[in-house]
Amino acid sequence: IRQGFPEVVYCEGKTVEQIITIIEQLNQRTDSNILATRMIPQVAEKVLAKIPQAEYHELARMMVIQKGKQKRVGNVLVMSAGTSDLPVAEEAALTAEAMGSRVERLYDVGVAGIHRLLLNHKQLFAARVIVVVAGMEGALASVVGGLVDKPVIAVPTSVGYGASFKGLAALLTMLNSCASGVAVVNIDNGFGAGYTAALINRIGEKEE
Amino acid sequence: IRQGFPEVVYCEGKTVEQIITIIEQLNQRTDSNILATRMIPQVAEKVLAKIPQAEYHELARMMVIQKGKQKRVGNVLVMSAGTSDLPVAEEAALTAEAMGSRVERLYDVGVAGIHRLLLNHKQLFAARVIVVVAGMEGALASVVGGLVDKPVIAVPTSVGYGASFKGLAALLTMLNSCASGVAVVNIDNGFGAGYTAALINRIGEKEE
Amino acid sequence: IRQGFPEVVYCEGKTVEQIITIIEQLNQRTDSNILATRMIPQVAEKVLAKIPQAEYHELARMMVIQKGKQKRVGNVLVMSAGTSDLPVAEEAALTAEAMGSRVERLYDVGVAGIHRLLLNHKQLFAARVIVVVAGMEGALASVVGGLVDKPVIAVPTSVGYGASFKGLAALLTMLNSCASGVAVVNIDNGFGAGYTAALINRIGEKEE
Amino acid sequence: IRQGFPEVVYCEGKTVEQIITIIEQLNQRTDSNILATRMIPQVAEKVLAKIPQAEYHELARMMVIQKGKQKRVGNVLVMSAGTSDLPVAEEAALTAEAMGSRVERLYDVGVAGIHRLLLNHKQLFAARVIVVVAGMEGALASVVGGLVDKPVIAVPTSVGYGASFKGLAALLTMLNSCASGVAVVNIDNGFGAGYTAALINRIGEKEE
Amino acid sequence: IRQGFPEVVYCEGKTVEQIITIIEQLNQRTDSNILATRMIPQVAEKVLAKIPQAEYHELARMMVIQKGKQKRVGNVLVMSAGTSDLPVAEEAALTAEAMGSRVERLYDVGVAGIHRLLLNHKQLFAARVIVVVAGMEGALASVVGGLVDKPVIAVPTSVGYGASFKGLAALLTMLNSCASGVAVVNIDNGFGAGYTAALINRIGEKEE
Amino acid sequence: IRQGFPEVVYCEGKTVEQIITIIEQLNQRTDSNILATRMIPQVAEKVLAKIPQAEYHELARMMVIQKGKQKRVGNVLVMSAGTSDLPVAEEAALTAEAMGSRVERLYDVGVAGIHRLLLNHKQLFAARVIVVVAGMEGALASVVGGLVDKPVIAVPTSVGYGASFKGLAALLTMLNSCASGVAVVNIDNGFGAGYTAALINRIGEKEE
Amino acid sequence: IRQGFPEVVYCEGKTVEQIITIIEQLNQRTDSNILATRMIPQVAEKVLAKIPQAEYHELARMMVIQKGKQKRVGNVLVMSAGTSDLPVAEEAALTAEAMGSRVERLYDVGVAGIHRLLLNHKQLFAARVIVVVAGMEGALASVVGGLVDKPVIAVPTSVGYGASFKGLAALLTMLNSCASGVAVVNIDNGFGAGYTAALINRIGEKEE
Amino acid sequence: IRQGFPEVVYCEGKTVEQIITIIEQLNQRTDSNILATRMIPQVAEKVLAKIPQAEYHELARMMVIQKGKQKRVGNVLVMSAGTSDLPVAEEAALTAEAMGSRVERLYDVGVAGIHRLLLNHKQLFAARVIVVVAGMEGALASVVGGLVDKPVIAVPTSVGYGASFKGLAALLTMLNSCASGVAVVNIDNGFGAGYTAALINRIGEKEE
Ligand SMILES: Nc1ncnc2c1ncn2[C@@H]1O[C@H](COP(=O)(O)O)[C@@H](O)[C@H]1O
Ligand SMILES: Nc1ncnc2c1ncn2[C@@H]1O[C@H](COP(=O)(O)O)[C@@H](O)[C@H]1O
Ligand SMILES: Nc1ncnc2c1ncn2[C@@H]1O[C@H](COP(=O)(O)O)[C@@H](O)[C@H]1O
Ligand SMILES: Nc1ncnc2c1ncn2[C@@H]1O[C@H](COP(=O)(O)O)[C@@H](O)[C@H]1O
Ligand SMILES: [Mg+2]
Ligand SMILES: [Mg+2]
Ligand SMILES: [Mg+2]
Ligand SMILES: [Mg+2]
Ligand SMILES: [Mg+2]
Ligand SMILES: [Mg+2]
Ligand SMILES: [Mg+2]
Ligand SMILES: [Mg+2]
Repeated sequence: IRQGFPEVVYCEGKTVEQIITIIEQLNQRTDSNILATRMIPQVAEKVLAKIPQAEYHELARMMVIQKGKQKRVGNVLVMSAGTSDLPVAEEAALTAEAMGSRVERLYDVGVAGIHRLLLNHKQLFAARVIVVVAGMEGALASVVGGLVDKPVIAVPTSVGYGASFKGLAALLTMLNSCASGVAVVNIDNGFGAGYTAALINRIGEKEE
Repeated sequence: IRQGFPEVVYCEGKTVEQIITIIEQLNQRTDSNILATRMIPQVAEKVLAKIPQAEYHELARMMVIQKGKQKRVGNVLVMSAGTSDLPVAEEAALTAEAMGSRVERLYDVGVAGIHRLLLNHKQLFAARVIVVVAGMEGALASVVGGLVDKPVIAVPTSVGYGASFKGLAALLTMLNSCASGVAVVNIDNGFGAGYTAALINRIGEKEE
Repeated sequence: IRQGFPEVVYCEGKTVEQIITIIEQLNQRTDSNILATRMIPQVAEKVLAKIPQAEYHELARMMVIQKGKQKRVGNVLVMSAGTSDLPVAEEAALTAEAMGSRVERLYDVGVAGIHRLLLNHKQLFAARVIVVVAGMEGALASVVGGLVDKPVIAVPTSVGYGASFKGLAALLTMLNSCASGVAVVNIDNGFGAGYTAALINRIGEKEE
Repeated sequence: IRQGFPEVVYCEGKTVEQIITIIEQLNQRTDSNILATRMIPQVAEKVLAKIPQAEYHELARMMVIQKGKQKRVGNVLVMSAGTSDLPVAEEAALTAEAMGSRVERLYDVGVAGIHRLLLNHKQLFAARVIVVVAGMEGALASVVGGLVDKPVIAVPTSVGYGASFKGLAALLTMLNSCASGVAVVNIDNGFGAGYTAALINRIGEKEE
Repeated sequence: IRQGFPEVVYCEGKTVEQIITIIEQLNQRTDSNILATRMIPQVAEKVLAKIPQAEYHELARMMVIQKGKQKRVGNVLVMSAGTSDLPVAEEAALTAEAMGSRVERLYDVGVAGIHRLLLNHKQLFAARVIVVVAGMEGALASVVGGLVDKPVIAVPTSVGYGASFKGLAALLTMLNSCASGVAVVNIDNGFGAGYTAALINRIGEKEE
Repeated sequence: IRQGFPEVVYCEGKTVEQIITIIEQLNQRTDSNILATRMIPQVAEKVLAKIPQAEYHELARMMVIQKGKQKRVGNVLVMSAGTSDLPVAEEAALTAEAMGSRVERLYDVGVAGIHRLLLNHKQLFAARVIVVVAGMEGALASVVGGLVDKPVIAVPTSVGYGASFKGLAALLTMLNSCASGVAVVNIDNGFGAGYTAALINRIGEKEE
Repeated sequence: IRQGFPEVVYCEGKTVEQIITIIEQLNQRTDSNILATRMIPQVAEKVLAKIPQAEYHELARMMVIQKGKQKRVGNVLVMSAGTSDLPVAEEAALTAEAMGSRVERLYDVGVAGIHRLLLNHKQLFAARVIVVVAGMEGALASVVGGLVDKPVIAVPTSVGYGASFKGLAALLTMLNSCASGVAVVNIDNGFGAGYTAALINRIGEKEE
Repeated sequence: IRQGFPEVVYCEGKTVEQIITIIEQLNQRTDSNILATRMIPQVAEKVLAKIPQAEYHELARMMVIQKGKQKRVGNVLVMSAGTSDLPVAEEAALTAEAMGSRVERLYDVGVAGIHRLLLNHKQLFAARVIVVVAGMEGALASVVGGLVDKPVIAVPTSVGYGASFKGLAALLTMLNSCASGVAVVNIDNGFGAGYTAALINRIGEKEE
C-alpha cells in the first residue's frame, strides 16, 4: 500500500542465511527499491554474489538495490560535525536518496570551527529540510536550527567517550535545543533521519 | 529576517513585569503574531488589561496576539492519547495555527482503546504532518507512525507516575519507535512540535 | 515438595563441568522434567552425548529433558513483536510447555503493522493468559493489554540500540502501560514469563 | 464489551468539576461498579454529597460505587511489608474486591522480622494469587515467591529515602527476583496489581 | 594564610541567626572582603540592618562586603546564553570582582542567534579568561571555545525543562565539548566559576 | 605503621611485569602477609614459578603469601546467596583469613529457599560479624540483618542480567535494607568486605 | 528477644496520632530505651506533653526516652565534614548513645581544610569505630579511612546541589573509597550508621 | 591563526590509512608541533617508519612531532592518585609540554596515604596551575584544591569497578568539590586538561 517506498531490512541480529533469504525474496516480489541497513562487509559479499546489481556502501554499512531509473527531486541537506560521524550521515543520505530525494552533503562542519559552517550558509538556505548528524556534545543542531527556518532532523551519534555515555550527551543536547524547529531521532539512527527527511521533502512535490 | 513567523516569548522564569514589558514592546514593534508560552492565568490577566485584543488559552497556558486576518493553510493533525495530555497538545495546535497552519485535533485516542483510533483513520490519512502527544508509555506514536506515510512529530509528556520518571519513559519509547518517520521533541514541548509541524506543513505551500 | 514442577538450571556463569554434573545428578534423582536455560551449543553437545533423550533448542538456548509423556492443558499464547525477539519468546514458550501448558505462538506482530495483529484477534481472545515479548519501544504490550481481558505478562527484550539502553526503554514502556492487567518481568527473562504464565494457566485446571 | 468489569476513573491531574461530571455520567450510564483512584478527601466530599451510596476509602484514596450485591469468589492475598505501604496495599485490595474477588489481607510482614511472615504461611498456601506490596528494598517479593507456587504480583512503593530513589530500588529488586513466578507492576500501582490479580483469580472460576 | 582572598559564606541550609552571627564575626575579625552566596532577600534585609555598608545583589542572591578601596585588574569576560541564566552569571561576575578582577559582561548571546555572538568577537579576543553560563543544551561553551585561545570556564545552569534534567543536559554538553580549553564546574555554580576565573586572571598579574 | 596487616596488591590494570616486580619486592621487604587480588591464572603461574610458597586461589582470583604460622581468632561468617557469587565470597573469606580472622562459610542460602537459611541459624548466631554476598536482587542481606544483632557487611555482586544493571539492583537493595546494622561495600568488592569484617572482628580480641 | 536494644520508631509517613499511640504503648510495654527518628517539632511537642521525661533533639529531629541510668562504654567517634551535615551526624551520635556507646564528636573537619583534620588525629586513633558524615563530594571518608586502622561507617548526606544529585555523588564517592575498611549506609541514614557503629563497639565489650 | 599552538589529531575511530595521511599532510604543511592522541602501538610503528623524528609515548598512547627547539616556560604540575591513572596523567603532561609549558610530575599521591601528599607540598605551592588525575572516588582534587590557591584542573579517570560506573563516580566527586578553584574535564580527557592548563600557564608569560 505504500507505493514508491523502499522495502527495508535491518540486518543487525539476523543470521547471514536469514538476510540473504529475505533480500532474495523481496527482490523477486517487489518493484520497490530495497534498502538493507547495518550490513557488515562479509554479508554484503555473499549477497552481491547472488544479486550483482546491488550496491554496497561500506562506510554506511548499507546495501541499496535500485529498481529502474529514479528521478531524485527536492533538496535534502545532510550535515555532519566530524569525520567519525560519517557512517551515520551516509546512512541518512543514502536512505533519503533511495526514497527519491535529491541529497546534498556538507560534512565536517562542527561548531569548534564555526567559520567553516558560516561559509557554507548558501547550502543551508537552499535546502528544504536539513539532517544534522553530530556526536560528542552535539551542539551543531542548535546552531543550524538558529540559522534556518527549515525543519531540522537531528541525529545524535555514539561518537565520543567518558561522559558522552555512548551518545546520551548528544541526544540530550539536541532534545533541549534552544532553537525552534529541531526534532530528534535515536542515537546513530541515520536511517530514521533520512527516512523522515525524505517524507518531509516529498511534501514539497506532492502539491505540484 | 524571518517574515511571517510569530515572535515568541517563553514566560517561565521571567517576572510579571519582565513579561508585560517584553510583550508590550513586541506588540508595538512588530506586525507578526505574538505567542507567549507557559503563561499562568495571573499574568495573563494583567497582560489582557493592557492589550485587550490578546487571546489567552488557559488550558494551553498560552497567549496569542493575532495581527490582522490570517489565512490558515495545509493540514496539521494534532493527536493526544489522554485527557491529561491536552495542555501540551493545545500548545502544539495553537502554535501551528499562529504560524498559519490549518490544524485538526483528534484527542483521547490512546492505544488502550485501539478501535477509537482506527475509526478515525480518515483524519490520519488526510493530514500532511501529524503531531502525536502522549504520556505514560507513549506507545501512540509508534502505532500512528505504522499507519501513515507522513512525518510524525512525537511529544512525550510528563503525565504518569513512578517509573514514568516525569516523561522519560515516553521519551525513550518514542525515540525507539519501530515505525519509520517518527521524530521527537523534548518532554512537554508542545510548542516545539507545533512549530516544527508548521515548518513542515509550509513546504507543501511554498512550492505552489 | 513442588510436585509436577520442572527442575531448573541456569547455565550462565557456570563451567561446562558444573553444568554437566548438575544435570546428570538431577536426571538420576528426579522424575520431574529438567530445564536448562541460557545453554550455549558447545555445552549442549556435551550434555547430549551423555543424555541422548535430552532436547536442545538452539534458538532459545535451552535444553529440555522430558520425563515420560506429558498432557499439555489450558491455553497460553506467546506473542513477539519482531524476529530478533524470538529467542526470548521461545524461552517463554518452551518453559510453559515443560510445565504442562498448551502453548500457541503468534510471532512478528509488532505495532508498526497493527493490521497483522488485529487479523489474529481470535487467538488473543482464545487464550487464558498471554505473554508479550518485545524490544525497542515495547509498545505491543499496551496494545494487547487494551484488546483483551486476560492477564498479560510482558517481557522487554534487549533488542535495539542507542536510547533503547539494552532493554530499559521497553521495560519502562511496559511498566507504564496505560492498559490494565499488564505485569512485567526482567529484560530478556523469557523463562520467568513462561513460568509465571504456566502458574496462571494451571489455576484454570486445578479447580476442576 | 467487558461485562462484569468496573469502570475506572484516574483522578490525578483532573479538576474537581471534571471528576464529578465523569463519575455522575458513568453512574447513570452503567450497571458496572465504578472505581475512582487517587481521589483526595476534598473531592470525595463533593462526590459523596451528590452520590451518597458511594464509599470513600481515605487510606487508599479511592472511591467505590458498588452496583447491587456482589458475590466475591476465589482467594486473592494482599501482603504488605510496612505500615507506610498500606495506601498502596489497600488500593490493590479494594480494586480486586470491586472486580469480584474475595481478598485476604496480611500486613506488616516485612523481611526484617521473617518469623512473623513464616507464622502466617497458611494464608500464603491458601491463596490462588498473591499481591506483595513493599517499599525501601522490596525484598518481601523474593521471599514470598520462594515460599509458594502461585503467581506473585509485586508492587514496589515509593516509601523510603535517599538511595531508594522514590521506589526505583524496590522496583529493581522485584524485577531481579531470584524466585520464579514473580511479575511486577509500576511503582505505587496498587490498582494495576489488584486488577491483574483479579483477572488471574477469575481463571479459577471461569472453568467451573 | 590566603591574603587578598575574600571570606565566603554559603547561606543555603543555614538559619537566619547562623548567617548573621557568622557574617558579623567575620566582619570584625578580618580585613578581607566578605562574600555571602545564595542569600535570600529576607535574610539580606536583616544583615543590612546590622552592617549597612554591605551591598546586596538581589538577582545574584549575593551579598558583598567590600573592605577599603580595591583596584580591579586584568580582564575576565562573563557571558550568558539567555535571560534566565543571569542569576548564575552575576554570581560569577560579582565573585570575580570581589577577588580583584576587572569583569566584562556579555549577556543573551545564545547560539540560536549566532550573529549576535559573532558581532561581539572583540570582547572575546580581549579577555584573559572567559566564563560561559548556559542552560538548556549549553552549546554556547563549545562555540566560544572554538573561537578563542583562552581558557573557558563553563557553567551549566538548571534552566530548562523535561530532558534538561535540571542542568544535566547542559553539564554533559560542556564536558564533551569538541573545542579544546573548556573546563566545567557544577550546575548553577556561578561562584566556583568566578572564583576559578579570578585565580586564572591573577596569574597574568603576579608575574609583573 | 600498621603491624599485623597484610600488604595488598590490586592486579587489575597492571602489566604482568609490574605485578611480579611489586610482589617480589614486597616479599623481600616485609614480614607481613601479602595479598594479591584480581589476579588471573596466567599471571599466577609466573609468580608461583618465582615464589613457590605463594598460594593461588583460582576461584577467588587471589594470591596469598603467608609469612610464618598465623593463629586465626574470633568468628567471621561469610555467606553467599548463589553459586555465581562464590568468587566474591571467597575473596572476602580469604582476605579476612589473611588478616588473622577465623572464618566460617555458609554458601548457597539465597532467599528463594529460605528454609535452608533458617536451618543454619546457629552459624549466624555464633558469628561476631557477618559478610553477606549476593547478586541479582540482593535480598539476603535484609533477611540476615533482621535475624541477627551483629554488624552485617553486605557485598552486592554483578551476577544477574537485564535490570540488575551489573550489580546496581543489589547495591540499592542493600543500601535500603529495612533491617538495622547493615553497611555496604562496592559491587563485587569481596576484598573490602573481608577487610572491614576482619577489622571489626579484631575489636573483640584487642580488649582481652 | 534483643535485650539491651532500644525500640525504634521511624516517624516519616506516619500521622501524629499513630506516632503518639505507638510511643505510648512502647513506653508502657518495655524497659528498653525508645528512639523516634525523623520527628518534627510539632509532633515532639505533643509527645512531650504526654511523656515529659522524653528528650527531644531538634537538630537531629529525634526523640529519646531513656529508661533508668545507662553506663556508656567503648569509644565511637562521629565526624562531620560541614555544618549542614550536623542533623545526620547528631542522629548517628544520639542513636549510638541510646544503644550504650560512649560517643565523641568531631565536627566541621571537611577535606577543604585538611589541617584541622590532621590536628585532631589523636581523637581518630583513640576510637574503636568511626562514623564519617559528609555531603557534596564526600571525600572525608577516604581520607579518614586512609589514616586509621578502624572500621569506618560512612554516611553520605543530601547536602549539595546540581550534580550532587541529592547525595548520589557522595554515596558513589564513599562506595569507591580507595582506602580499605570503609562501609557505607544509605544517604542521610545517620540512624543506621550510629546503630551499626554501636553494634561494632559492643564487640569490644562483650568479650571481657 | 593560532600561532604557537600544536596541530592535534584524535586517532580513535579513524583507520590506519586515514591517520597516516593526515599526519603526513600536517607534517608538510605546518611548522607547529603535531600531537596525535589515542594512538595504538601498531599505528605508531607505521607512522614512525615514515616520520622517524616523531616520538611515540606508549603509556600515554600519544605521538608528538616536535618542530625545532622549544623553550618550555612557567610551571604546570600534573598529579595522579594511582598507578592506573598514569596513561591519562601522561597524556596531560605531554600535551602541556608540546604547548610550551614546563611540566612537573607528582604521581601516586592518592588520599589513602595523605602523608605522602603532604610531604610534597613544596611542589604544590611552586606551581602556577595544577592538573589532578584520579579515578575510583577521585577525592584527591578536593584535598589539593583545599591546600592551594591555584586553579586546579581535575580529570576523572575510568579506573575502578562496580559503582565507579566507568568514571562517573570520580566525575561527580570532582564537580561537587567543596574546595574552591577546581574545574573539571571529561572522564579520561588528559589531553583537554593538559591543553587548558597550558593555556592558563601562558597567561603568566604573555604579560612580561
Ligand atoms: N514552551 C517552549 N518550550 C521550548 N522553547 C520555547 C517555548 N516557548 C518558547 N520557546 C523558545 O524560546 C524562545 C524565546 O525565549 P525568550 O527570549 O527567553 O523568551 C523562542 O524563540 C522559542 O525558540
Ligand atoms: N533464564 C533465567 N532467568 C532468570 N532466572 C532463571 C533463569 N533460568 C533459571 N532461573 C532461576 O534460577 C534458578 C536456578 O538457579 P541455579 O541454581 O543457579 O541454576 C531456577 O530455579 C530459576 O528460579
Ligand atoms: N532514620 C531511619 N532510617 C532508616 N531506618 C530507620 C530509621 N529510623 C528507624 N529505622 C528503622 O525502622 C524501623 C522502625 O520502623 P517502623 O516500624 O516503621 O517505625 C526500625 O526498627 C529501624 O530498623
Ligand atoms: N584525547 C582527546 N580527547 C578529547 N578531544 C581530543 C583529544 N585529542 C584531540 N582532541 C580534539 O580533537 C580535535 C581533533 O579531532 P580530529 O579532527 O577528529 O582529529 C583536536 O583539535 C582536539 O580539540
Ligand atoms: Mg530554526
Ligand atoms: Mg510511518
Ligand atoms: Mg486488558
Ligand atoms: Mg514461587
Ligand atoms: Mg579554544
Ligand atoms: Mg540486625
Ligand atoms: Mg583504614
Ligand atoms: Mg583552592
